[in-house]
Amino acid sequence: MDETGIHSKTIAIIGLGLMGGSLALALQGKCAKILAVEKDEATIKLARQQKIVAEISNDPIKIIPQADIIILAAPVCTILALIPSLPLWHPGNPLVMDIGSTKREICNTLQGLPTRFHAIGGHPLCGLESSSLAHADGSLFQGAIFALCRLTSSNEVDCALAEALVLAVGALPLWVEPQQHDQWVAVTSHLPYLVANSLAGMIPSDARQLIGPGLRSTTRLAASSLTMMTDIIATNRDAILNQLIIYQQNLSELQALIEAQKEAELQAYLLSGQANYVQLMKTERS
Amino acid sequence: MDETGIHSKTIAIIGLGLMGGSLALALQGKCAKILAVEKDEATIKLARQQKIVAEISNDPIKIIPQADIIILAAPVCTILALIPSLPLWHPGNPLVMDIGSTKREICNTLQGLPTRFHAIGGHPLCGLESSSLAHADGSLFQGAIFALCRLTSSNEVDCALAEALVLAVGALPLWVEPQQHDQWVAVTSHLPYLVANSLAGMIPSDARQLIGPGLRSTTRLAASSLTMMTDIIATNRDAILNQLIIYQQNLSELQALIEAQKEAELQAYLLSGQANYVQLMKTERS
Repeated sequence: MDETGIHSKTIAIIGLGLMGGSLALALQGKCAKILAVEKDEATIKLARQQKIVAEISNDPIKIIPQADIIILAAPVCTILALIPSLPLWHPGNPLVMDIGSTKREICNTLQGLPTRFHAIGGHPLCGLESSSLAHADGSLFQGAIFALCRLTSSNEVDCALAEALVLAVGALPLWVEPQQHDQWVAVTSHLPYLVANSLAGMIPSDARQLIGPGLRSTTRLAASSLTMMTDIIATNRDAILNQLIIYQQNLSELQALIEAQKEAELQAYLLSGQANYVQLMKTERS
Repeated sequence: MDETGIHSKTIAIIGLGLMGGSLALALQGKCAKILAVEKDEATIKLARQQKIVAEISNDPIKIIPQADIIILAAPVCTILALIPSLPLWHPGNPLVMDIGSTKREICNTLQGLPTRFHAIGGHPLCGLESSSLAHADGSLFQGAIFALCRLTSSNEVDCALAEALVLAVGALPLWVEPQQHDQWVAVTSHLPYLVANSLAGMIPSDARQLIGPGLRSTTRLAASSLTMMTDIIATNRDAILNQLIIYQQNLSELQALIEAQKEAELQAYLLSGQANYVQLMKTERS
């Protein structure tokens, strides 16, 4: 048996929303069996109707003991609350992965599991503003960056298995330190959400007559799940505040340039944003 | 002859970039003849190769006198510079329309044309971050809001003709006062550009390893043409500054809620942005 491959493994996903459901769809045929634990009755019904997993229950004890790999697919604070229960649900030595949006607190908590557990932190960068199983899509991870965080207790087999799972769903593994991950996503993901939400919140109803595709794009993240986002803010507060402060300093500089009609400096400011955007998009495609 | 229809009209477009070129494509078969004036030699060559217009020249005198309708399709300050030359180029009484992104200064300047001219201000809300003829698309205006501004000198025939042109390209005419237009687009279009550009400008190169589709969407407008945007800022400065100040007040409130860990108020703030986004998208689809 190839210990580093997932094809012989039984994988249990806790939380069958957009991300968990998309993972289940993307893993079809790639592993021995896919199971799920889910609280919501309507989601369980939908998963059974569409045969998304081999077995699903709202009772972890019926599912978790069978798993070689357990994937925690829930908002960050729910993941943090689930981890301490894992030793009650699983008697063996499974690999635990999570796909939560912040990594420092989750990895610290995973590190506290009994040593019989293996664990790797994970975060696929392909969320959508919708969050239910009805929107799940097996191609969601195709080409997406999938951040992976090694714990001090992780061994080479754990890392290879996590990487095999990421590659199996079509994503690109990127190993990163939890602290570094949280600092980067504060500016590439959490700040953009706050920027989009604050912008969406200030459009007066009259002005809605004159909206085009630009506003739709800039405000799209405003529709993100509130639970997901408030959990993210609660577990990455300092990094997010730092970025929010820098952003406001930039806007204040921009305001001063527009007020003072400093055409050349304004041009330079906007050109810098444009040039960095072009670089971002090159990075994303490469 | 139906005076209010465009099918018997010769239409000259000044400026064959993304918007002018898309208009030319969308008007194919809807009017008697489409002509264009363009300075850029490569664009002229492309337009001739692809037979986008019946006739094109860099010399307005060869084109403009033939037109029943003249459409000014250029960045705002170029439009402002073109208007005073129209009486030198056209001896008759054509309808002049523009598709500039701000309307107050343009409509004021159009109002200064000799009384033999007819004029209506226009602004289709379907710009893209690309700006060349190579990206022109005849379906660009389909379903887009097309703001129209009546001047004090406009008569019913002018208005009907402008509306017929808008409907011919598949857009939805919306009559609005120039001042009102500029106030609304300051928040629905110009502020989103500044928000997106400032965000794109602050993403550190290291953090680019962790970007997902959310950042791409939120920063998309950062790639907009600098000339187009600086012209917009120059001609709508006060309204844009007002909105930029309100936006910074909102961000500052948000920062305070995150800092003070006021969970309920933070939830309410974010919920308000989310709810307004849902309303925006309903409006856009309706």
